[in-house]
Amino acid sequence: MPVNLPLPQAEALLPVAGVRIGSTMAGVRKAGRRDLSVWLLAEGSVVAGVFTRNRFCAAPVQVCREHLAQQGIRALLINTGNANAGTGADGLARARRSCAALARELGLDARQVLPFSTGVIMETLPVERIEAGLPAAIAAARGDAWLEAAQAIMTTDTQPKAASRQIQIHGRTVTLTGIAKGAGMIRPNMATMLGFVATDACIGADLLQTLTRRAADASFNRITVDGDTSTNDCFVTLATQAAGHAPLTEPDSPEARTFAAALDSLAIELAQAIVRDGEGATKFIAITVQGGRDEAECRLAAYAIAHSPLVKTAFYASDPNLGRILAAVGYAGIDDLDQSLIDLHLGGVQVVSAGGRDAQYVEADAARVMQQAEIEVRVNLHRGQASSTVWTCDFSEDYVRINADYRS
Amino acid sequence: MPVNLPLPQAEALLPVAGVRIGSTMAGVRKAGRRDLSVWLLAEGSVVAGVFTRNRFCAAPVQVCREHLAQQGIRALLINTGNANAGTGADGLARARRSCAALARELGLDARQVLPFSTGVIMETLPVERIEAGLPAAIAAARGDAWLEAAQAIMTTDTQPKAASRQIQIHGRTVTLTGIAKGAGMIRPNMATMLGFVATDACIGADLLQTLTRRAADASFNRITVDGDTSTNDCFVTLATQAAGHAPLTEPDSPEARTFAAALDSLAIELAQAIVRDGEGATKFIAITVQGGRDEAECRLAAYAIAHSPLVKTAFYASDPNLGRILAAVGYAGIDDLDQSLIDLHLGGVQVVSAGGRDAQYVEADAARVMQQAEIEVRVNLHRGQASSTVWTCDFSEDYVRINADYRS
Repeated sequence: MPVNLPLPQAEALLPVAGVRIGSTMAGVRKAGRRDLSVWLLAEGSVVAGVFTRNRFCAAPVQVCREHLAQQGIRALLINTGNANAGTGADGLARARRSCAALARELGLDARQVLPFSTGVIMETLPVERIEAGLPAAIAAARGDAWLEAAQAIMTTDTQPKAASRQIQIHGRTVTLTGIAKGAGMIRPNMATMLGFVATDACIGADLLQTLTRRAADASFNRITVDGDTSTNDCFVTLATQAAGHAPLTEPDSPEARTFAAALDSLAIELAQAIVRDGEGATKFIAITVQGGRDEAECRLAAYAIAHSPLVKTAFYASDPNLGRILAAVGYAGIDDLDQSLIDLHLGGVQVVSAGGRDAQYVEADAARVMQQAEIEVRVNLHRGQASSTVWTCDFSEDYVRINADYRS
Repeated sequence: MPVNLPLPQAEALLPVAGVRIGSTMAGVRKAGRRDLSVWLLAEGSVVAGVFTRNRFCAAPVQVCREHLAQQGIRALLINTGNANAGTGADGLARARRSCAALARELGLDARQVLPFSTGVIMETLPVERIEAGLPAAIAAARGDAWLEAAQAIMTTDTQPKAASRQIQIHGRTVTLTGIAKGAGMIRPNMATMLGFVATDACIGADLLQTLTRRAADASFNRITVDGDTSTNDCFVTLATQAAGHAPLTEPDSPEARTFAAALDSLAIELAQAIVRDGEGATKFIAITVQGGRDEAECRLAAYAIAHSPLVKTAFYASDPNLGRILAAVGYAGIDDLDQSLIDLHLGGVQVVSAGGRDAQYVEADAARVMQQAEIEVRVNLHRGQASSTVWTCDFSEDYVRINADYRS
């Protein structure tokens, strides 16, 4: 059961002029599952992306990076059920072959296709099944198929993740619609498992890349479910230029800021949706570390808390065993940390002051906060002005069950 | 159910001349539990220790470091049920008060007592209960109480951990007997939760400290259960000098090597016992990363594998979903890693060669290895000559259950 995550409504997902999406059941891993999608982009679309820093990055990620080095992208090809990672030279060849097949169907060059895969690692990509599924996916392509598109990239997700924004730029209505997937192996390091945002905004490739990286840093790079950085993380934005306003060029112009704010907000909603639907999650937890010397050490401490199995199981049990949070801060890797300065708040309750149990603290107050489905943790290091927030979920028996069963 | 961990037999735990141990039920946290022990050391005993690097280190750890700065230690005081960590200035005062109380009973100076605590973090140490329990613990002190001593430091451990070694030095029989505790919050960074080794060897403080640090590096610093570094990790060795041989002074003398080998072997047995009894463990897993440029990067990759909840749940399920191991190697933090060089073996089965699925690999072979209770994982980075081994356990629903219930 995801935590406070309503099902997206098809009618709330706004079409983006210049983008059509079609999906089908290609039987990549299992029959009867919508597992293959193609995105068809209008000529002149501009694409930006950030990709996993996992050194064992998947074959499609390597091909994406190559193809993105030049623009002119006209199609995306996404499969679930198989990650095509840990597959060596053969995996690369299969990723390229799938791009060539879609290009052939569409009269494009293979380098105009970006491939994406998600699913089990170290298994051979059944590229012939993908080839066989392409005509049906292309035939199904529509401008209003966003909910299906979100469904077609799910793996252990319990529900699709999608959202839209609309803004005004130079008097024109600009739309952004995005989808994401992911529930486990979530500790993005550049992006999430898979996230896509399409917009009809008129924007150049360099600026789109800059804003995409910033949006990833504000969203997907601040979440974790289990601390496992995927081999296939991608966050891709594409701008069809169809809205007809004067192109955005300067990152600091009011219009670019309006666009960036909408992109950030959409990316944060999608990233938080991944945490809300985290494998086995029963709670959504926002961890803020403030008073650090720089943002990096705040994020280090926030992630140490967010990754601790002991902290996560205590949240699951609604047990205010909050010393575990102090222990995580202590081993986060801040070498000259002074424990005697540290404060800890849980929601509105001050638990620790100056490194020890606060004199007014009563466990019953923290216990009430722990019962809630959404919980804020705030640590103050009292050694500087920086802060950082990370979002995570708790850790239940269901996480173990899901991951012990995955594949079977 | 611990993994291949026989119960220690009282008669196999050899007394160490100059050491007497007594324990009692002081009701530190719960009644009816042996939770307080005192160790009485002969005059002239030499003590060495390594302590947690957690910056939120417990009050007793801080006091231990102070008291160890000078020798002359004559007693150890250990309680379970309360970690006296995250307790600020009040916790420090209580740790000192407990040392003073034991010193008073024994006619010593408070600085001749080393205090150790393990249990729940961020709760006030009930020092008056400890004081009340001291006379009974002292009265119970015997030279052959090692099994009780091991029982008296348990928290979530399902069984006591203790072992002995005997060696010959300069024609004299030298005994080493040690105990350890720990099952969760286990990712020692200098030592384990609590480990103690006593010996009657004649050895100076500096050499004992050197060999203690080396033994910790070869044992407790190579294990992990859940990646959580405790606030209370201590590994302490004490040498009563009672064996009567010519003192060991040179680390490279044959006698010192004999002693070091016995100490290492004892520490490794105790460290592995912690993993075998890891919370919820059903399997014992040895992870070796070889072919690294240095030992540090090998250990980094080995720990990334050992900490991955996805890898650990796959082992629990006996599911050879081994791409998860590659993903962990990929995000371990080795920036210039070349995935196309990497090999992976599971037991005797070659799974990956040159970064992709090995041509001869059949999943049924790996599935057979995954069924075993003791499993070896071997990754070769093929970029140097260094290697490192880390020991861990799998990750089951019981880990979550135990840690969601702990305290209650």
